[in-house]
Parts: sequence; structure tokens; C-alpha cells
Amino acid sequence: MTENDRTEFDQIDRIVARLGDVAAHDILVSSGDDAAVWASDGPTVATIDALVEGTHWRADTMSLADVGWRAIAASASDIAAMGATPRYALVAVTINPSMDSESIDGLIDGLAASCRQHGVEIAGGDIVSGNEAAVTITMLGVASIESGRGAPRLLRRDGARTGDAIAVSGHPGASGAGLALIDAGRGDESKAKPLTDAHRHPLGRVALGLAATAAGLGCAIDISDGLLQDLGHIAHKSDVGLEIDHEALPLHAAAVELLGHEHALDLALGGGEDFELVIVGDGDVLASLSTSDLPVTVIGRVVDAHRGEAWALTG
Amino acid sequence: MTENDRTEFDQIDRIVARLGDVAAHDILVSSGDDAAVWASDGPTVATIDALVEGTHWRADTMSLADVGWRAIAASASDIAAMGATPRYALVAVTINPSMDSESIDGLIDGLAASCRQHGVEIAGGDIVSGNEAAVTITMLGVASIESGRGAPRLLRRDGARTGDAIAVSGHPGASGAGLALIDAGRGDESKAKPLTDAHRHPLGRVALGLAATAAGLGCAIDISDGLLQDLGHIAHKSDVGLEIDHEALPLHAAAVELLGHEHALDLALGGGEDFELVIVGDGDVLASLSTSDLPVTVIGRVVDAHRGEAWALTG
Repeated sequence: MTENDRTEFDQIDRIVARLGDVAAHDILVSSGDDAAVWASDGPTVATIDALVEGTHWRADTMSLADVGWRAIAASASDIAAMGATPRYALVAVTINPSMDSESIDGLIDGLAASCRQHGVEIAGGDIVSGNEAAVTITMLGVASIESGRGAPRLLRRDGARTGDAIAVSGHPGASGAGLALIDAGRGDESKAKPLTDAHRHPLGRVALGLAATAAGLGCAIDISDGLLQDLGHIAHKSDVGLEIDHEALPLHAAAVELLGHEHALDLALGGGEDFELVIVGDGDVLASLSTSDLPVTVIGRVVDAHRGEAWALTG
Repeated sequence: MTENDRTEFDQIDRIVARLGDVAAHDILVSSGDDAAVWASDGPTVATIDALVEGTHWRADTMSLADVGWRAIAASASDIAAMGATPRYALVAVTINPSMDSESIDGLIDGLAASCRQHGVEIAGGDIVSGNEAAVTITMLGVASIESGRGAPRLLRRDGARTGDAIAVSGHPGASGAGLALIDAGRGDESKAKPLTDAHRHPLGRVALGLAATAAGLGCAIDISDGLLQDLGHIAHKSDVGLEIDHEALPLHAAAVELLGHEHALDLALGGGEDFELVIVGDGDVLASLSTSDLPVTVIGRVVDAHRGEAWALTG
């Protein structure tokens, strides 16, 4: 065993120790074997996402702790958008020569805090050297099963039907507004805080996804690519037309105040990185999902026209 | 939706088409939703591995097709080393500016061929841009369950007991010998072919891992880090001493002939990237695992001395 090898294994031990309760200890086989093993208690829901410095984040607008947080949140959001519960993350990190142990610790702490927030444990990982920093997350979740029928309860992109209402959680465009303010050197303004928080510490909407499946709904997507684009995916997969009303969009008040209505509206329609859910189904059921912590707002409807396309209409 | 977005989704459709039967179609939710979903029929076995150009492969010794093959083989080997069956891969690829569509197709074809070889389907993926090419694989497998007791049958690093025999599959050092010959410009010699094949198209020993659990064995590791180092992991995790005999090592005849006995022995002990399995247990049971396709050779024993260390002894 070479010095480098020893250092690699010491580093893994150190990382597992720093993760603390977030490192999966109570599974069948935990850290330190060829693979992790856990009992399965329902259908497996799985997604993989790679984040690369320069492409997915900029060192001048996000710390590595922010990157760690967002990586877990983004993957938990994909599981939430299926109406499933995120359980275990596998994390591969590429360390570049400019990352010292302090910045690596920051990344680990960001991952760990976001795992705690989203109810996720880290079951395995890989840490490698390269010239470009990167974080790749695989998130494994479990879907619930309908009592009696045995079919999994899932939110799918192909579940929209003509006559359904369309709702969105939270305030789309908040993350984009936060980034725009940071870019303009206004990120430290007091009114900007909820928006910069939305950019740096987004939340996957796990409880909402579960509430939607429990309420019998069957269609959702997360709007990480931007509201209109992701609505387009539902229109395409469900072979229906989607229409939303500009006036109905729940813009963030701070985004409107600080950036103006037009810019806030643009960001709501196409900003991306919001990790809110669009859910499609019965309007009354959708409205019942709204909570004091997280509004769910009906913004449009599914129509039997312009199939495969999502339209945003002005009043 | 911008031109770039459209290109990304077209690219994903094109990749899924090129993967053909290797893209998982018969699962509960396949490509094109927020996450993949499949039914779980036993404990989940999971591993993640990142390969970065320059660190894990060199463009002058491996094609991208070779990289794709090896990435799947390496991850399948981790599942095999647990005595489990690999099922689904999630694949994240970082494309750098020098990769054209032909080289991307090569990567996809290498991934697909290796998936076919190892009985794996690709259930999801992510494709991102960066300056450094990388392939990150998450492999998900399933462990079998002991009839009656309900406990999973697994091969673990902590399962070695004093008095057990130690066996290794195949010919450790073959991959390292192949690389040494390629580096020396001798990769095209006819006798080098089995060694360069071992380097470029390694095989995860899935059938052997399953045969070992079926035979009641409970301890194994893959020797991707090098035989002695990986034996050290078993010694450490099992709190025993391991001893192997130089004379017993099943060196590849071509490696001895082309590189000399001493070099071949060094590569067998520390070369790495072989993806053979070390299995520990009853000597007669270990010997019974040998097949005409894949020899399993007893190379040493577990002792109640020098705990945590693996020693290689000369006769």
C-alpha cells in the first residue's frame, strides 16, 4: 500500500466521520465494503445528476458548501417530482488541485446539511482527482404502494388529461432573481435575502410530492429547467396542450420589487433551478395541497389543443 | 426552449436509441421522466465510481469505447464481489470540447457492449459539458435471500476466519501486463493479445460471486486496487492475518513469457485493475468453484497472527 493509497483511505474515514449521522450506519452493509446494501421496502426510484464547476456553478457566486447543498436538493427534487421518498445518496466528488481540505470540508458540510434537511443518508461514495471540480449524485428513493392493488403511486409526466388544472408550488423565478441580484452586486441587500437563499439553498419539495400522491394525483414535474420548458415536457409526454396565465403566476414579491415586474415574470417562466413542483390534476385537490409554509397556486389548465405545447397567455 | 435545450433532448433520444436493448424499457418508469422506477425483489446493492480522463485512463492507451466497457465492468465487479447480481446502471458523462459525435458514439457502444456482457440495463443518465471527460457509473444490484432465514447472502470483507483458505480467480497481473506491453509499444504482438484484452475489456466475475454465495461462502473482495492491497482490506476488516505464497500465484503464462517472471509477479501482487475476485473460506469449497473458463486457485491461508496485515511469502 503506497502513501497515496493510505491517504485516500484515511480521507474516506475522515469524510465518513465528518458526515456523522448522515453517513448511513444502520443499513445491511455500510461504508467500507465493495458496495452498500440495504433492505428494499418498495419500488426503487433512482436518478443521477452531475454538476461541473464552470458549467453548473461559478466559484464567484456559490461556495462549495452551497454546491453540496444544491446537489442533494436537486436530486431529492427529482425523487419528490415522482411522489416518492428520497432515502440514500451515492456521492462521487472530483477534487481539483485548488481545493484544500477546508474547501473539501465545506463541500461535505453542505452535503450533510442538505441530507438532514431532505431526510437522506449517504450510503456510498467515490473521491477522485482531476483538473475540474465536479459532484455527481445518485439519489435512491422508494415509492409507496396503493393498498389493495399493489401498484406504485407515482407522479408522472404523462399523467395530464384535458380539463385538469395546473398548479405550481412556491414562487417560480426566486432562484433566478437571487442569481441576478448576486450578479448585479446587490446580493447583500436585506430584501434580497429570501431570493439569494432560494438560489443557494433550494429545497426539494418532498412533503408536497408525497401529499400529492396521497391525494390521488398522478402528474408532476420539477421545474429545474424552467417553468415553461418543463410544462412542455408534460405537454409532450401526455399529448395534451397546456395553458398558463401570466396574471396567475405567484411571483415573489421581493423579485418584483427589486427587479421589476417584467424581469421577475421572465425569470418565473424561464429562470430554472427553482426545484418547485408543477402538479396537474383536479383544481380543488391541487388547492388543498397549499400550506402556510408552501403555497400551491393554480396557474392554468390542460386543453385539447396545441398538443405537445405549453403556452403562457397574457390576460 | 432554446436551441441548446432542444439539442440536449435530441441527444438523449439519440443515445437511448443507440443503446437499443440495453436501455431499460420494461421497468415501471423508464427514460424520460424525473427518475427511473423499478420493482425491488430483494436487498439493494449499490456502488458509485467515477473515471476521469488523465487520472483513470489515458487517451493514448484506451479508446472511449474501451473506457465505456471498463466503467461498466468495474462497477459490475463491485456488485459481483458482494455475491450479488448487477441489474441497472445510471451513467453520468461529462463531454469535453474535443469529443465529437463519433467518439461519443464509441463511448455509448462500449457501455452497451459491456452491459450486454454483464447482464445490465441502463436505467438513467445525465450528459453534461465540461473541460475534462469523465464517466461516473452507479450500479444497482440485488442480493439473494437465504431460504427460511430471510437474511441476505453476501460476500463481505469482514468474513475471513482463522484457518480459512484464500483463493483468487483468473490470472492477477494480466491487466497490468497488458498496459506495460502497450506502453512499451508491444501491444500488437500476437502473444500480447490476451493481456491487452484483459486491460481494455476486463470482465466482472458475476457468475463466480453468485456461485460463491450459493456454495455458502461469505467473504470476498475484488482486486481492482491490486491483490496485496485488497487482501489488506480483508485482513483489516476481519481482524486476521493473511498469508499468500508467491509460488501459488496463477501468473498469466504470456505475462511471464513477455515480461519475465519477476515483473509478472510484481504486477500480480500490485498491478490493479484486474477485477478478479479473492474469495476466502473452506479450501475444498473454493477449489470446487473452478471452471474451465475461469480457474479459481488457492493461494494462501488466514492465520491468527500479524492481524490486519496481508503478507506475501517466498517459498
